[in-house]
Amino acid sequence: MSLNSNSCSLKDRIIKEGKVLPGNIIKVDGFLNHRVDTTLMEEIAKQFAEIFDISKITAVLTAEASGIPVASICAHKFGVPLIFAKKAKSDNIENGLYKSELFSYTYRKTVTMIVSTEWLKPEDHVLIIDDFMAMGNAVTALIDIVGQAGCTLEGIGVVVEKGFQGGGDKLRARKELNYHALAVIDRADENGIVFREEE
Amino acid sequence: MSLNSNSCSLKDRIIKEGKVLPGNIIKVDGFLNHRVDTTLMEEIAKQFAEIFDISKITAVLTAEASGIPVASICAHKFGVPLIFAKKAKSDNIENGLYKSELFSYTYRKTVTMIVSTEWLKPEDHVLIIDDFMAMGNAVTALIDIVGQAGCTLEGIGVVVEKGFQGGGDKLRARKELNYHALAVIDRADENGIVFREEE
Repeated sequence: MSLNSNSCSLKDRIIKEGKVLPGNIIKVDGFLNHRVDTTLMEEIAKQFAEIFDISKITAVLTAEASGIPVASICAHKFGVPLIFAKKAKSDNIENGLYKSELFSYTYRKTVTMIVSTEWLKPEDHVLIIDDFMAMGNAVTALIDIVGQAGCTLEGIGVVVEKGFQGGGDKLRARKELNYHALAVIDRADENGIVFREEE
Repeated sequence: MSLNSNSCSLKDRIIKEGKVLPGNIIKVDGFLNHRVDTTLMEEIAKQFAEIFDISKITAVLTAEASGIPVASICAHKFGVPLIFAKKAKSDNIENGLYKSELFSYTYRKTVTMIVSTEWLKPEDHVLIIDDFMAMGNAVTALIDIVGQAGCTLEGIGVVVEKGFQGGGDKLRARKELNYHALAVIDRADENGIVFREEE
């Protein structure tokens, strides 16, 4: 018996369990990013494996903290290591790091994401995975880090995109980034959640 | 072909790849908590499944951020959800949360760990998993949260314990906690790393 919830699709779960809070905040923390349904994460990994050429990938890259569960299960499924970019703990950042600054809406301040130069190499072929996209600041910082490391970016997979905040569309316009989101929410208000039609 | 490193055991990996820095700091970030070898994480999940009665467990609980990769792969392997306690982003903490304060040596300040009361229920049977134990502050906060939620704690599994810092021994003395570490380091200095004999 699996104690994860039963396996209806991601969009069904968002409709059934997602909560829309004032300010167009969408909470999916009951299955995606606080209590995480690991069976659903495996299905998500399968969906990404249909979109991206997994045979080319040597590492999955994500950002701490809420991207880590889904990215870990994807990396495990794809048979590659997971690298997670960390948030710098202080302003006094040591050497030997790729770093990228972003404005964090969660922390309401500028945060520096860091990855050790030891663990991301020019020969790596990287798939970026993240749980949630709004403005796209975290993913943009990860793209920056992949560029600093001189790696090949094979694609960017996001589980839930708030389409109406524009971050996804900016990345979609840059075809070379190979950006895909599994569920794009185009409206979220007191009338419910509306998904964008499939591309 | 797996792009994770080949599967020698955890202790071999610590000896081969672990770095001892001044102040008895042990770095195992090339396979455990920055670039994470997901194949090794699956082996670790198998080891925990031999130690704990997985059939009783309804959720795995860990603390952000570095506990999340190993705990996610364990939860997936055990067919249960993963819950990760978050670090509170500000002093202004909303309602509906279990909270526990701890002193973080990484952040050099007091940090509040939080779990939404929605996602941890009295009927849950929880296995706490963490990557690293030094003083044991993070795990102690997780035990506190499990107690607040009125859950049953089925056990605590830690991957690497710095035995000489005493956190593990304090938990080991409380038999009811069912605490186990896969690798207990009793000495780490310029002469290398020495493991504690198996219990």
